[in-house]
Amino acid sequence: MTQNGPDDAVPPAAAAGAATAPAGAETADVPPGVVDLLGVLAYALLVAFFRLAEDAALAESLADKAALGEMAVAEFGQFQMVRGRIQELNVDPDEAMRPFVDGIDEFHARTAPSDWLEGLVKAYVGDGIAADFCRMIAEVLDPSTRELVLAVRRDTGQAEFAAARVRQAIEADPRLAGRLGLWARRLVGEALGQAQRIAAEHEALAGLLAGGEVTQLGEIGRMFAQLTDAHARRMVTLGLAE
Amino acid sequence: MTQNGPDDAVPPAAAAGAATAPAGAETADVPPGVVDLLGVLAYALLVAFFRLAEDAALAESLADKAALGEMAVAEFGQFQMVRGRIQELNVDPDEAMRPFVDGIDEFHARTAPSDWLEGLVKAYVGDGIAADFCRMIAEVLDPSTRELVLAVRRDTGQAEFAAARVRQAIEADPRLAGRLGLWARRLVGEALGQAQRIAAEHEALAGLLAGGEVTQLGEIGRMFAQLTDAHARRMVTLGLAE
Repeated sequence: MTQNGPDDAVPPAAAAGAATAPAGAETADVPPGVVDLLGVLAYALLVAFFRLAEDAALAESLADKAALGEMAVAEFGQFQMVRGRIQELNVDPDEAMRPFVDGIDEFHARTAPSDWLEGLVKAYVGDGIAADFCRMIAEVLDPSTRELVLAVRRDTGQAEFAAARVRQAIEADPRLAGRLGLWARRLVGEALGQAQRIAAEHEALAGLLAGGEVTQLGEIGRMFAQLTDAHARRMVTLGLAE
Repeated sequence: MTQNGPDDAVPPAAAAGAATAPAGAETADVPPGVVDLLGVLAYALLVAFFRLAEDAALAESLADKAALGEMAVAEFGQFQMVRGRIQELNVDPDEAMRPFVDGIDEFHARTAPSDWLEGLVKAYVGDGIAADFCRMIAEVLDPSTRELVLAVRRDTGQAEFAAARVRQAIEADPRLAGRLGLWARRLVGEALGQAQRIAAEHEALAGLLAGGEVTQLGEIGRMFAQLTDAHARRMVTLGLAE
């Protein structure tokens, strides 16, 4: 399938990353960990597309189905952008994504929504955390990767649809706030736990996330704390005050 | 939800169609049955999007997942085009689609693929029949609806992906041809059976399909025979000779 299998002549430094890449001129320009970052983003977006399409199929009204379908299609467009950048770097996108398949699949398996509202909360929470993460990580990236990452996560206002539907549901039945608030907390816990695990297993990616700091785990911990704070603020606007 | 409920002042001729529409100037220009045709097309495309996204999630390779995802996204773009036309005619898209939800959902419930290959065959067969149907129906449509219907079904070459994968699988294991051939026959039987039922239940739509002929059922029968012939030719190119 790929031309960049482990048996090819890849320098040890490049091979240390999870995704293999030929030592081409383009790839040499990007810091270690960037292919990993693009791989994890690409697979996360691809799976987000499938999950949103699945949730959309469960919507009762045709208008909601179509609105969620639009969110899903937007995620797929973002996946295509990231995949394009991986290809520009002469890396096989499958190879770049593969090391992150298990971690991301596990996150989704552990957070399967039990109904339409939980699906909406998950879409909203996931979108918010991903957007914050991209804004934070953008600071430590090379200019062209930074531009891509910021473009990918530019707010299309689609998360607002999910938020509006959840607020409506809570207004109609205030008891929902408790259950959905717990669900949101579980989601952010699972997401950050899985992200910690992924960072721990991918040294080059962890180095990138930490901005080259020696105290990587501390830096990553601080980043996750910021993500959690921003998440908590979003929960308040959603009517799910902690 | 809609402003065009059955209690509104809709002339009997318009109310005979399954979808209600205000007697606006735009709607008056299109023959009876056109809103039904657009409604059935829109819902078929929306559901095709969900089904393809579901099948894509089952693909083993990341490249296959992405390729099926692209097909799904293309279906959604076509859905958006048809929905836009319904809105231009001042009809609520949900109202236009609703009469066809049960029939199309039933088709999919009766033809749930049991594996990835059956999903690919279904995508290919469905896409082919839909494209042929649109080409045939285009002849009896008003110019702007005709343009839309032809644009919607313009071949994007994506069905070729499904066909190539099925051919590969049959070359690798020729015994598959028997099972998949039977499956394709069942699909076309279910599709045309369901289409007959939908036409029988929607007089204005049936009139449109028959090109205004008095012998509607005969005309529709001839159209379905042509669809079956074209399907049989495609099966040969797929390696599933009857």
